[in-house]
Amino acid sequence: MLEGCPETSTGEVAYPIEVDYDYDRLEPGFLDGRGDGGLDRWASLLPPLHAPGLGEGRTPLVPIGRDVYIKDESQNPTWSHKDRLNRCAASAAVGAGARGIAVSSSGNHGASAAAYAARAGLDCIVLTATDTPPAVLEFMGAYGAHVFAAPDHARRPLLRAIVEHTGFHPVSSTTVTHTGHPFGVEGYKTIAYEIAADIGAPAAVYMPTGYGELLFGVWKGFTELHRLGLTDRVPELVACEPAAAGPLTAAIEQGLPAARVQPGPSDAYAITCAVGGYRATLAATSAGRSMRVSDKQMRAAQDQLRRQGLWVELSAAAGLAGLNAGAAPGGPVVCISTSSGFKDRPAGPRPGGATEDTWEGLQQRLVQAGVI
Amino acid sequence: MLEGCPETSTGEVAYPIEVDYDYDRLEPGFLDGRGDGGLDRWASLLPPLHAPGLGEGRTPLVPIGRDVYIKDESQNPTWSHKDRLNRCAASAAVGAGARGIAVSSSGNHGASAAAYAARAGLDCIVLTATDTPPAVLEFMGAYGAHVFAAPDHARRPLLRAIVEHTGFHPVSSTTVTHTGHPFGVEGYKTIAYEIAADIGAPAAVYMPTGYGELLFGVWKGFTELHRLGLTDRVPELVACEPAAAGPLTAAIEQGLPAARVQPGPSDAYAITCAVGGYRATLAATSAGRSMRVSDKQMRAAQDQLRRQGLWVELSAAAGLAGLNAGAAPGGPVVCISTSSGFKDRPAGPRPGGATEDTWEGLQQRLVQAGVI
Repeated sequence: MLEGCPETSTGEVAYPIEVDYDYDRLEPGFLDGRGDGGLDRWASLLPPLHAPGLGEGRTPLVPIGRDVYIKDESQNPTWSHKDRLNRCAASAAVGAGARGIAVSSSGNHGASAAAYAARAGLDCIVLTATDTPPAVLEFMGAYGAHVFAAPDHARRPLLRAIVEHTGFHPVSSTTVTHTGHPFGVEGYKTIAYEIAADIGAPAAVYMPTGYGELLFGVWKGFTELHRLGLTDRVPELVACEPAAAGPLTAAIEQGLPAARVQPGPSDAYAITCAVGGYRATLAATSAGRSMRVSDKQMRAAQDQLRRQGLWVELSAAAGLAGLNAGAAPGGPVVCISTSSGFKDRPAGPRPGGATEDTWEGLQQRLVQAGVI
Repeated sequence: MLEGCPETSTGEVAYPIEVDYDYDRLEPGFLDGRGDGGLDRWASLLPPLHAPGLGEGRTPLVPIGRDVYIKDESQNPTWSHKDRLNRCAASAAVGAGARGIAVSSSGNHGASAAAYAARAGLDCIVLTATDTPPAVLEFMGAYGAHVFAAPDHARRPLLRAIVEHTGFHPVSSTTVTHTGHPFGVEGYKTIAYEIAADIGAPAAVYMPTGYGELLFGVWKGFTELHRLGLTDRVPELVACEPAAAGPLTAAIEQGLPAARVQPGPSDAYAITCAVGGYRATLAATSAGRSMRVSDKQMRAAQDQLRRQGLWVELSAAAGLAGLNAGAAPGGPVVCISTSSGFKDRPAGPRPGGATEDTWEGLQQRLVQAGVI
């Protein structure tokens, strides 16, 4: 299941397995129900939720301008969208009777997998990058996972070795192009369900894109709702990749099912990926497009969000950066913000921060800063 | 309004102002409605919500054992319960026509106030402690606030000077004993409303307690619901203070409306307070009690939560530490966890973290760690 499709995959491209459902048996009022909140509300279109939840999902749509909303995924149990994936992936591990979970991650995914593993009573091994920030290392280790750094070239082979020798269930891709976890990616559909339940199908959804799993999940969710007659359209889905990498845009430009690129430097480390996957290409070519955004554009979008009271990781600002880079689509637009500002490398000293114990000293600084 | 009650306050004790409502005019079905989600759902029992929201509230109850739930307040816009307070306090600043907000805080409160100020288009000045961790300083500065460190003894006088000279609206107490913001504290009532909507009134609610504003808000919320006939009881409300300080427990022991203590060392910096407030004493003596928990007890509770997939600030584990320290009440119990683990001072290196690029090396470490 996690090796990709044995029939269609080649030495150059791995094709993922996809979950199908008996859509004809879906109960009416799928979008209206309150259910238990979180992912359980949508259980009838998800793989079996064997692993206990942490209240993931039901994140707010925060309006930041006329017809523009931020889907704030930092309001999840481990403060990123990855919790939707890991609830489903950990459920697969429980269902398969695995004794542990193995994951390769630069941050959010690893911490989230560790949390859901702990919650389900499973061991967890995290392979991370050698330049992972200390705060993110502590985050990934906080749930009792065994965290190891490995050079980029060694991470996929090591993950394969772990899976082969320990029987731990992998929730990261081990294939030549990205396939990911077939159950895990289904969790991202719930973002589409929640948006549709809140405001219907918007004109467009812009989102940060690394391997493109979020893109595929959101696309599949909206496609299901449209097929079921519950919404009147599938939004335009815009994949926003860092200009320093961008395997999806490269694949589309070259007409390939998935491409490989040589990443340049970028601070958007969560989405700077050397290899793409077929799922992303399928989604972007079916109902959307792919674009590149520079670190400078992401920083401007990140600053725009600060002024709206939202502190996001640089990568998480890629969706809004993409929207800002072009003409606004007609109608409501949602930009998915995937994660909190705590995940970035420290930005260094900010304005202020000086110690003062008299009003005269403080007053002088406030005048200098133009506050008073 | 923010100076405490001018008639009853004395040189030793400041009594806060409290908001009252026309409860007879409340629409039926208060607990049933879905509304807009977040705090807006409860607007009919809150001060006017002039300031725009960020999707605060509607946090999950995560079951961690038979009849024990964690109310995970880290799933808020700035990842703590303070967002409920600051939506209401920033609304008061907007309603008063203030050009800015001034706040004194060791972390969560300052960052949250900064976020809601930015969202409302207001300036913000944050006074913080001189030993605030760098990551928390960055967090408080992330929303464009002007952040200054000041020695503990200087913070209240400096806040008073800022308010007097700049006209900024204070959302922290400036009085001799803690009074806090009369509108802000109303925001905490929504925690009681959400719990009651999810599971009814539980047998008990345990919560971290510093100045006791959370305690008062939750008490008032449950008291309102009971008075309105919407629940069958007011839960026992248990205030869990760090043993290193504990002004509420001291006040109750001494029969005072509010007390002052000399804090000892504690890593639960968010709730280690030298001065209490009358609101907390009122709540604890009306429908609950107060207890002290040691750093060691909080660490054990924090570790228990890690194993459940919840990474919380040490202070946030005080509620569960309190529950663990005594006999379990009969019936459902909720422990409020106020904030995420990102807010703690770095704990230093964790197990693992070594760099490996071969299976043999990794295998050896996994065997040593007892994983395989």
